[in-house]
Amino acid sequence: MKRTLIKELTTTINEEGQQIYGWVHNIRDKGKIAFLEVRDRTSPIQVVIDNPEGKTLDIKKYDIVSFTGTPTTSGVKSGIPGVEFQATDHQVLTSPKEDYPLPISTKAQNNPDQEFNHRVLSVRNPKNNALFKIQADIAKHFSEYMRSEGFTQIFSPKIVPQIAEGGANMFKIDYFGRDAFLAQSPQLYKQIMVGSGLERVFEIGPVFRAEKHNTSRHINEYISLDMEMGFIDSYTELMDLEESMMQYILGKINEEHGDEIQQYFKTSINVPKETPRLALNEGIDIIKSKYGYKNREEGDIDPKAERLLTKYAQEEHGSDFIFITNYPTKKRPFYTMPTPGNPEITEGFDLIYRGLEITTGGQRIHDYEQLLSNLRIFGLTDKGLEKYLDAFKYGMPPHGGMGIGLERTTAKALGLDNIKYASLFPRDVKRLEP
Amino acid sequence: MKRTLIKELTTTINEEGQQIYGWVHNIRDKGKIAFLEVRDRTSPIQVVIDNPEGKTLDIKKYDIVSFTGTPTTSGVKSGIPGVEFQATDHQVLTSPKEDYPLPISTKAQNNPDQEFNHRVLSVRNPKNNALFKIQADIAKHFSEYMRSEGFTQIFSPKIVPQIAEGGANMFKIDYFGRDAFLAQSPQLYKQIMVGSGLERVFEIGPVFRAEKHNTSRHINEYISLDMEMGFIDSYTELMDLEESMMQYILGKINEEHGDEIQQYFKTSINVPKETPRLALNEGIDIIKSKYGYKNREEGDIDPKAERLLTKYAQEEHGSDFIFITNYPTKKRPFYTMPTPGNPEITEGFDLIYRGLEITTGGQRIHDYEQLLSNLRIFGLTDKGLEKYLDAFKYGMPPHGGMGIGLERTTAKALGLDNIKYASLFPRDVKRLEP
Repeated sequence: MKRTLIKELTTTINEEGQQIYGWVHNIRDKGKIAFLEVRDRTSPIQVVIDNPEGKTLDIKKYDIVSFTGTPTTSGVKSGIPGVEFQATDHQVLTSPKEDYPLPISTKAQNNPDQEFNHRVLSVRNPKNNALFKIQADIAKHFSEYMRSEGFTQIFSPKIVPQIAEGGANMFKIDYFGRDAFLAQSPQLYKQIMVGSGLERVFEIGPVFRAEKHNTSRHINEYISLDMEMGFIDSYTELMDLEESMMQYILGKINEEHGDEIQQYFKTSINVPKETPRLALNEGIDIIKSKYGYKNREEGDIDPKAERLLTKYAQEEHGSDFIFITNYPTKKRPFYTMPTPGNPEITEGFDLIYRGLEITTGGQRIHDYEQLLSNLRIFGLTDKGLEKYLDAFKYGMPPHGGMGIGLERTTAKALGLDNIKYASLFPRDVKRLEP
Repeated sequence: MKRTLIKELTTTINEEGQQIYGWVHNIRDKGKIAFLEVRDRTSPIQVVIDNPEGKTLDIKKYDIVSFTGTPTTSGVKSGIPGVEFQATDHQVLTSPKEDYPLPISTKAQNNPDQEFNHRVLSVRNPKNNALFKIQADIAKHFSEYMRSEGFTQIFSPKIVPQIAEGGANMFKIDYFGRDAFLAQSPQLYKQIMVGSGLERVFEIGPVFRAEKHNTSRHINEYISLDMEMGFIDSYTELMDLEESMMQYILGKINEEHGDEIQQYFKTSINVPKETPRLALNEGIDIIKSKYGYKNREEGDIDPKAERLLTKYAQEEHGSDFIFITNYPTKKRPFYTMPTPGNPEITEGFDLIYRGLEITTGGQRIHDYEQLLSNLRIFGLTDKGLEKYLDAFKYGMPPHGGMGIGLERTTAKALGLDNIKYASLFPRDVKRLEP
């Protein structure tokens, strides 16, 4: 017998012998009749079991059951309003062996450990179920936008050799007796691929940071939406691209999931028309003069200052996003393009979304001699970078790119106060399971 | 000035002041006129530079150049046939500092080390450039097919805890002083997510195998196209799905890239109508009786037998694909569903494509007690599997899935004799760079 998805039952009203599958989430057993809330991946529905002889119902809450019967119109308001399923037969496929350790309720206030220890149950919560469908769609719309702009998806290696720069924040692997590391970014590979003639590349993949921070803003393995493009004149083109891309992605998410976001997350997506852009120094001055707050991080923005810059962007520009540009050279990686005529600052930017940095990007150095000279300025050697540097020796076009944190973007779009909630199986200093 | 892509020049014929960017791949300098072959990511074109005063041309082969000028109609046959670009001005953006160590030619016979050591150059070869665009499209069409069938994309962790089963073929990591491993498959996570109510999930991500084989069929890090689905009646549904999916993916690749595949790879995609299915024993018998070859691997198929099964599928069924089913239980992982009534064999399959296994799949055990009992039969404990087993304790629907190797699929579709060619930066026992 072919399965009918619950959501499709509205198209087969009164047709007998339909089969549905799902989890039983609620049972009201009235003796001669029982009303069950059954959910599959598409929708909940009310299932009615007539039981004129008053036999003991052999279905328990959270059983996984196959029902045969007929969808009918009804006055029911829950599940699919106006439709219920009259079951004539059923078969219990699986029963829980133990009571659930946490409730499957959108109102549940579980602590993070409960959520993450029991992912099979916590994702059953319609709120989390929606969360991860939205996250999948953010990745999908990112890919679509990238492809529409002529980018090719690449898959760069996550096991990488030791480089002079690396090690401090990288996880070490034993690679057949040699030291290797987990990539903290696809940076060097995506740059090489610009030079390979592909010109525009993107990647969606895990990156790994062996940082000991254990905060609501950090996870040690996350999904990075990376892109890199050749033939740019300035890093402002990258900001233009990200601005358009965020409009596209969040516009789509709003169209497709706006109601769920309102219902489950009590927030709404504010699709940015124009994103304000401030140089780092300007930003620091504004939050000092406007909010009396002195930024505490030398050459960067501390978490409170990030939140105040968002407050400024929202109040003055009606935008949940703000670009901060021109970070000092010494705070950015060696491949970052210094500003011509002012090499103390860089041709790059961060994007802050609702109080949290979600993107770092910028123009890169493309001239071989300049890159070698910058390596020396940074006190680095070319150890492990030989093949990367070759790409520049053979000629690289002017280029730049960015990396966007998927979990951070998802968390901020949905108003979550901890990005770990936006990771199916988060990894932090203490958490390696499940 | 706004850039025009070379491919788009056909729509702006005779419009002055266009700007194109690209790599100069060939120069015929006739003194008062020079003809250059210039390539951007979209196409090559012939660029003409009039030089009535006979000045020395300041462009060298493989320079990256910006040209300003006018596209005109012409009798030219190369590049964009019928169109050339009359350059009035140009600016060299970057020059190679050294001669290229390998030729950029579709006829080049580079050895694998040359290819992989110089990826920025070897991917410039139009053949490799096409290869990686096709690979990106295989991943794209896989995603699209999955989504159209109601699957949600997930991102499971690549850093995983030690489990009793694992370790032998897994890379070990130092995770903040604890032993951790790189995931050799998203298996356990995708199964949990079926139980989370998402029901149908897919993932595109790296997997890591610490196997010491160094053959044309193995790499130690590869991209796995994974899927898992709930509420199946039998593993034959999974084969049905993969059959339809391969028709979809390869049909699209054929439509979009058939000409390039013919031109560069001298092969063509044979979109399967129906894929033959043989039990392992039947397959072994057939190649013995038909080709006189005795399979050498106990309970599995050796590489030569894989090639002969393909020969059989091609000769008898006109198919480049063949499913082999019912592998013995002892050769499959502990979570594999044994055949009811015949627990020595399993409800699973491999898919062989042009002589190489590209997929392993099957139905999984969903009953908690049966899974615990199977762990014992396999001599395993639940160490590190506690959270995985919880998913079954709380009730899992009948389910199954598969994993498809992206590099293997790409290599076979294009007739490559080594799957490493289908990896941008392959990792093998000896190769960790670039």
